[in-house]
Amino acid sequence: MKMFLPILFIFCLSFSASYASVQDFCVADLSMSDGPAGYPCKKVSGVSVDSFVYSGLGTAGNTTNIIKAAVTPAFVAQFPGVNGLGISAARLDLAVGGVIPMHTHPGASEILVVIEGTICAGFISSSANIVYFKTLNKGDIMVFPQGLLHFQINSGKGSGLAFVSFSSPNPGLQILDFALFANNLPTELVTTTTFLDAAQVKKLKGVLGGTG
Amino acid sequence: MKMFLPILFIFCLSFSASYASVQDFCVADLSMSDGPAGYPCKKVSGVSVDSFVYSGLGTAGNTTNIIKAAVTPAFVAQFPGVNGLGISAARLDLAVGGVIPMHTHPGASEILVVIEGTICAGFISSSANIVYFKTLNKGDIMVFPQGLLHFQINSGKGSGLAFVSFSSPNPGLQILDFALFANNLPTELVTTTTFLDAAQVKKLKGVLGGTG
Amino acid sequence: MKMFLPILFIFCLSFSASYASVQDFCVADLSMSDGPAGYPCKKVSGVSVDSFVYSGLGTAGNTTNIIKAAVTPAFVAQFPGVNGLGISAARLDLAVGGVIPMHTHPGASEILVVIEGTICAGFISSSANIVYFKTLNKGDIMVFPQGLLHFQINSGKGSGLAFVSFSSPNPGLQILDFALFANNLPTELVTTTTFLDAAQVKKLKGVLGGTG
Amino acid sequence: MKMFLPILFIFCLSFSASYASVQDFCVADLSMSDGPAGYPCKKVSGVSVDSFVYSGLGTAGNTTNIIKAAVTPAFVAQFPGVNGLGISAARLDLAVGGVIPMHTHPGASEILVVIEGTICAGFISSSANIVYFKTLNKGDIMVFPQGLLHFQINSGKGSGLAFVSFSSPNPGLQILDFALFANNLPTELVTTTTFLDAAQVKKLKGVLGGTG
Amino acid sequence: MKMFLPILFIFCLSFSASYASVQDFCVADLSMSDGPAGYPCKKVSGVSVDSFVYSGLGTAGNTTNIIKAAVTPAFVAQFPGVNGLGISAARLDLAVGGVIPMHTHPGASEILVVIEGTICAGFISSSANIVYFKTLNKGDIMVFPQGLLHFQINSGKGSGLAFVSFSSPNPGLQILDFALFANNLPTELVTTTTFLDAAQVKKLKGVLGGTG
Amino acid sequence: MKMFLPILFIFCLSFSASYASVQDFCVADLSMSDGPAGYPCKKVSGVSVDSFVYSGLGTAGNTTNIIKAAVTPAFVAQFPGVNGLGISAARLDLAVGGVIPMHTHPGASEILVVIEGTICAGFISSSANIVYFKTLNKGDIMVFPQGLLHFQINSGKGSGLAFVSFSSPNPGLQILDFALFANNLPTELVTTTTFLDAAQVKKLKGVLGGTG
Repeated sequence: MKMFLPILFIFCLSFSASYASVQDFCVADLSMSDGPAGYPCKKVSGVSVDSFVYSGLGTAGNTTNIIKAAVTPAFVAQFPGVNGLGISAARLDLAVGGVIPMHTHPGASEILVVIEGTICAGFISSSANIVYFKTLNKGDIMVFPQGLLHFQINSGKGSGLAFVSFSSPNPGLQILDFALFANNLPTELVTTTTFLDAAQVKKLKGVLGGTG
Repeated sequence: MKMFLPILFIFCLSFSASYASVQDFCVADLSMSDGPAGYPCKKVSGVSVDSFVYSGLGTAGNTTNIIKAAVTPAFVAQFPGVNGLGISAARLDLAVGGVIPMHTHPGASEILVVIEGTICAGFISSSANIVYFKTLNKGDIMVFPQGLLHFQINSGKGSGLAFVSFSSPNPGLQILDFALFANNLPTELVTTTTFLDAAQVKKLKGVLGGTG
Repeated sequence: MKMFLPILFIFCLSFSASYASVQDFCVADLSMSDGPAGYPCKKVSGVSVDSFVYSGLGTAGNTTNIIKAAVTPAFVAQFPGVNGLGISAARLDLAVGGVIPMHTHPGASEILVVIEGTICAGFISSSANIVYFKTLNKGDIMVFPQGLLHFQINSGKGSGLAFVSFSSPNPGLQILDFALFANNLPTELVTTTTFLDAAQVKKLKGVLGGTG
Repeated sequence: MKMFLPILFIFCLSFSASYASVQDFCVADLSMSDGPAGYPCKKVSGVSVDSFVYSGLGTAGNTTNIIKAAVTPAFVAQFPGVNGLGISAARLDLAVGGVIPMHTHPGASEILVVIEGTICAGFISSSANIVYFKTLNKGDIMVFPQGLLHFQINSGKGSGLAFVSFSSPNPGLQILDFALFANNLPTELVTTTTFLDAAQVKKLKGVLGGTG
Repeated sequence: MKMFLPILFIFCLSFSASYASVQDFCVADLSMSDGPAGYPCKKVSGVSVDSFVYSGLGTAGNTTNIIKAAVTPAFVAQFPGVNGLGISAARLDLAVGGVIPMHTHPGASEILVVIEGTICAGFISSSANIVYFKTLNKGDIMVFPQGLLHFQINSGKGSGLAFVSFSSPNPGLQILDFALFANNLPTELVTTTTFLDAAQVKKLKGVLGGTG
Repeated sequence: MKMFLPILFIFCLSFSASYASVQDFCVADLSMSDGPAGYPCKKVSGVSVDSFVYSGLGTAGNTTNIIKAAVTPAFVAQFPGVNGLGISAARLDLAVGGVIPMHTHPGASEILVVIEGTICAGFISSSANIVYFKTLNKGDIMVFPQGLLHFQINSGKGSGLAFVSFSSPNPGLQILDFALFANNLPTELVTTTTFLDAAQVKKLKGVLGGTG
């Protein structure tokens, strides 16, 4: 055995060397501009196991707010290790009465798994506007197809906890109320394109900080 | 020249023969089930130039309706030739005062080109809920990124006409009002997930035929 | 208001009608052959909310086995709603001393979230064979890039529970020991291609049921 | 209502903040190098509605040339807003007798819509070299599958106008005559690989400026 | 060791069972209609090692024809094992003076490796119509980007042999001369769209069997 | 003819000009950071035919090592012309008794063509751990699906030569023995996750230079 040991070692070294610049992951270098496929990769020398581990979902989000709920994302901006890997995650905390309001993820499908409590979740398909919703219990999972309006409501008596994952490192999040009422889109444009009454629009703009 | 003519002819025939089953398009066989990538392909023998030409966008849609507008699609269901080709089209007719209400395409980005009239078009990004809208004139084009809420309003004195194209044969179309008010999603779920007042929800359900 | 109600209703009906055959999801029809992009879609009439909800991850897998662990998948074969959506999930149960042995998913990256216990997890990159591993606590997440060897070990004093998600409805699972020792790959081929001793190979073939 | 207003406002602000770096579009920064998936994204602060609107297709191209036609592109190089969105557009002007000569788009399928006049358009499939061509009238659309030779001819008595869209922000354009006769590809290589006579090749090289 | 053997065996069996319907390849069932992503998969029971091995490239193609060359494809139609795997192959035989005439692959990039002889190969980019060509010797490889016109010529004194591979199971093949002169595309359309003289077109139609 | 020559020339020039920045390939600029889709493109001015030709596979690799074999890659790191084109290649040299040991390519499927000698090649599917292997002769090709363990053994009496191609410019290469025994993964973790005996692990660590 001893005889070929040195030769193998050479093989091993030289082999590794030829592949030194080849990565099979691409941890985001957030200091550079991203592109359509994600961020440029950090050099391997700047990557450690901590590039692939994220502890930010380990503590509950603050639910002391009007929706009594919190979404804590682990998208590429928070968790650079998912860059280019087609996946990301988030944590949903729902206090009693908590609601994740109607929203879409323009860039990803989602799977939710209930860890604690009881959650009423649903989505609306564009085909004939059919609504699919159900009360989910601990351990149940539900999938929400990309780009469709969906929601989650704590329908139990205690707090609710769920983890969700997405089919993209950067799924996006468009919350309907924020899109309509929390910016400077003129009230007339909102009423014209949604058929909502101006009074309703102004009321929610007042609540959500919208202008115009 | 004459000498090798027969040989070449053989080459040509045999070459064509080996490729007889190879298609470089995939006209949808709408009689079969579709899959994630689209419909199975028709056999070449069932394909003609009319598989690739569609005349359904040549006449104006009927704008005698509440939105004073019409969307005439040329998606894969109407125009099987686009199956698998990553593209489709539609025609927008807007009478005076016409509106294509707030909607998303879950599966595609869109480019609009104004052919007649003046159209106010815009979309809402999910990043900080910024609104991008502008009045477009004849010949102007605008792009709407995939999955984001957007709208088009006839802001001129005459009728408006636009053609749009999509980055998918099956872009989908989720009209906000229909998603919220034209199905059996219970009013309580709508108010809880949108913060709209129940009276507002019931009013629009009445208009759009929603129940629950 | 009353005046245009009937007209709108017509608009709504006819609009829905034109899109009746357009789906924005593709629940797998498992009775048909799958293809490179997944299974053909069920007709919408055969789809209900239960197509998008799966309860099979709600109960612990049986860990009374040699690895003291269980993987319960919610891939497209078990959960047809994920077909074509680029995502799936699974549940990992690890009894005290439990191990998910060295394996790869040829078709997907993976995110793991620890729900209970303490898990030592890691993967081996092909670039210079660097190993990335760490002890994960409740709420920590870790990402495993597509196709790389990885493992999870219960390193705590109690049982461990984790949910994982994948960037594909059909991630695949190649467990190293089963690939090498649980089939009819001749011992001589195993030793030649792995440098393992024949005695070691035969021992593990005996344990795992391999022949040849 | 007043009571929870401040809390909601906090929620809104903090929520927006967490997503501030997440884009759901990627306007090309043309000052940087592009990559296989497109250009790096401009920062959101440098993006306005004018990033998504292009007016360059609003005026007719100059058709005072040998082909009596003009192609005015709105690809990513001209219209940075389409970067990463899988779509782009162009305008075709055809004077009386105008021709868009035989060409391919290596990177995209195309849909053409006739706005004015009568256009004879066609493509050649590689399967048995079948030709698909037809005379298109105002409002007709035709799809041209990716990478196949195709052409458009003004077959009417007046001028023709069409808008085209592509399934890529960078479809490419290879005009057959320019590829063969407008560069330094030696005449001998052209004749050998096309079977054209040397005299024919030299004549067209003379017209199109080719050398060698 | 004996003690847990039965338990492990159970684990192994049940594990295999849960994955029995999961494939990590998709051998084409050529008896069914293909779709945009390829053919439906054969059942695993109908798959053997011979599904993944093809011997059709082992013998030289017949070069007794006008181009003194032969292309022998191993695309999905000939080699069903490549279905869905993003790759295929072909063999090029070039007798003395042999030429693979100007052609494109609409659906794939190509790598060529010279096994015997000397081959002059090149392609024409669409960017400013730049030509890239070079004489290749044994062991040299050259890459041809997707959809661009390219050619290979035996420039040596003996016969030439090359193997090529493609980035798609179904790359397509559009040979320029066959596309223009071997079908029923009217001569007038050819001359109008290529600027070739009618006499030249008719001459080559005569050779290649074209009509019209 | 002379009359329109100047006009055409103008057309040609201006046409080329508009497309000057459009590339239909993307030769890697290896001096910049890569991203999930590959490297940024070199400017066209820095590209020549030598960007698309690679001669590094023309000479046999050094097989004077323990595996009596050599893999010479032409991946994007060695051959920048393949960047973004979905393809790459490599050369396998196998001396008498040579073995390419058990390995995976996490990012690509592979086709192998035997040029000289007799090669026993095989892969292990994850579906029920079925093994597919066969002795291949000159001219035979075999496909190895993405991410699955596979191997090649010189089973003939002379040396063996094969060329392989991959469905990615950066397929990756994870050699099982190097992943397990050539790094600092602690022996206890290896034995726990592979069921190999510690003595076996230590022996191979000794041979391959592993520590811990």
